[in-house]
Amino acid sequence: MSLISVGTMAFDAIETPFGKVDKIIGGSGIYIAYAAANFITPIQQISIVGYDFPQAEMDELTKRGVELSGVEIVADKKSFFWSGRYHIDMNSRDTLATDLNVLADFKPMVPESYQGAEFLMLGNLSPDIQLSVINQIRVRPKLIVMDTMNFWMEIALDGLKEVLKQVDVLMVNDGEARQLSGEFSLVKAAKKIMDMGPRFLIIKKGEHGALLFHKSHVFFAPALPLEDVFDPTGAGDTFAGGFIGHIAKTKDISFENMKTAIIVGSAMASFCVEKFGPNRLKEITKADIDERIGEFVQLVNFDIDLV
Amino acid sequence: MSLISVGTMAFDAIETPFGKVDKIIGGSGIYIAYAAANFITPIQQISIVGYDFPQAEMDELTKRGVELSGVEIVADKKSFFWSGRYHIDMNSRDTLATDLNVLADFKPMVPESYQGAEFLMLGNLSPDIQLSVINQIRVRPKLIVMDTMNFWMEIALDGLKEVLKQVDVLMVNDGEARQLSGEFSLVKAAKKIMDMGPRFLIIKKGEHGALLFHKSHVFFAPALPLEDVFDPTGAGDTFAGGFIGHIAKTKDISFENMKTAIIVGSAMASFCVEKFGPNRLKEITKADIDERIGEFVQLVNFDIDLV
Repeated sequence: MSLISVGTMAFDAIETPFGKVDKIIGGSGIYIAYAAANFITPIQQISIVGYDFPQAEMDELTKRGVELSGVEIVADKKSFFWSGRYHIDMNSRDTLATDLNVLADFKPMVPESYQGAEFLMLGNLSPDIQLSVINQIRVRPKLIVMDTMNFWMEIALDGLKEVLKQVDVLMVNDGEARQLSGEFSLVKAAKKIMDMGPRFLIIKKGEHGALLFHKSHVFFAPALPLEDVFDPTGAGDTFAGGFIGHIAKTKDISFENMKTAIIVGSAMASFCVEKFGPNRLKEITKADIDERIGEFVQLVNFDIDLV
Repeated sequence: MSLISVGTMAFDAIETPFGKVDKIIGGSGIYIAYAAANFITPIQQISIVGYDFPQAEMDELTKRGVELSGVEIVADKKSFFWSGRYHIDMNSRDTLATDLNVLADFKPMVPESYQGAEFLMLGNLSPDIQLSVINQIRVRPKLIVMDTMNFWMEIALDGLKEVLKQVDVLMVNDGEARQLSGEFSLVKAAKKIMDMGPRFLIIKKGEHGALLFHKSHVFFAPALPLEDVFDPTGAGDTFAGGFIGHIAKTKDISFENMKTAIIVGSAMASFCVEKFGPNRLKEITKADIDERIGEFVQLVNFDIDLV
């Protein structure tokens, strides 16, 4: 049982109404790995970093069961850097800087030792990179999950549609589902997007939870109502990591099990937003996760016998 | 077992992206009655109408078990009239006209035959009117549920706070919860509002579902993802009617049963938006309601044993 995860490993500068950090570890690959490694190891990581990426962070990932032989280290360039400022409602943000650095000419390489992986998580990256990874894997994984964002719909829609044909599960937020489908109704949007390739579609609605669509079935998972959302950065990637981590652990790709995986992903995302960057993910234990999942059960559990 | 419901009986003119109606029956009391009467009768209605309110509509309500002895008919004035236009996203609307007519000097009268009611539903009306009804009822009902809106927070906040001290359950939407509490976080808002009086707080989030708060407990109910929302008018009142209808039917005011009541309310609201005004509510059967509630169970049901 193994999981390949493709995503960025980067530095972020983040400003929220609660504070700011000038430089913190980040990137979709980091959040996915920290979330998924609670459920399955090894995580076979594919990414790229510059000379400035701290060895201590690499060691921490290795300690948690993240294999780094697919992570290219570029000796003369800096790591990818993103900077953003959240608005007071935390649902929107301004991107202040995007320094691609090493990411500008990232050609992902799937190590021979990764061949045979049963699960593939394509974190948010350019469709070209996602497709390149798919094409390098000789035996198709049991499940390919893809995250993406509006940016790629705007500058690389054709490539994005090519990747869509190859994946089983797509994750987007509600705005992106509307943009990709041209439909305002999320139910109609889901039908159109599933016609583009993915058999399963997860629409993330941030504080309003997430929807899972498959054929004519739909499942809704809430987000945990929190006193404070300290920093939403990486919440979507963390959700993805919890989702694929549970699937890879259980090796069950049924709709029923994906429901559970979405609850697991939601629980992981609820931790992520409690501190800056991946800081909270680094400190939680299995007991914390179990307790949080229990809160989700309480949150939605009801008895309908009385009706 | 009896339920007093206070609310408007009115005419509405509604424009949505899907069409328009110039004059259709409406008002909070109408929607509450049409929803609640599926679960309990009699509904002891308190309201006011003008000479123009159709006898056929009165007869239809009577047929469904709605008692009208508490509905004043004013011979020389018109019924309350509201007109609104929904924006394309259906989550916001412009009010085009509010002709108070009979509502301008409504002094609600609780008929002697209504005394002893176990449940009281205060639909969205001025706090003065809501308080007047509470004060006329000699034996305090087992449960008092109150709906209100931002308008009253702006022009009658002191009166609103007086009513809050008297009620068990308050229903507001997320924007109103933030406005009333001055807190952006709904969890913090809920705590502040429960300190104002109500032991239970329901925060309605439209297409994003509803939250029930009680002490440190929270329950989340989703809205059913719909292909089209045809007309949202009355959805909140219909939710209230389904909620109080289930509570009055089961006579169980526990937190656990309120969860179920919220699912019932959500199911009723999901019918309401399918056609203009209360038209869909007028045609649905018990079988339709049971089937819809079953869809809600499917929507949120998951098995967490695998984790």
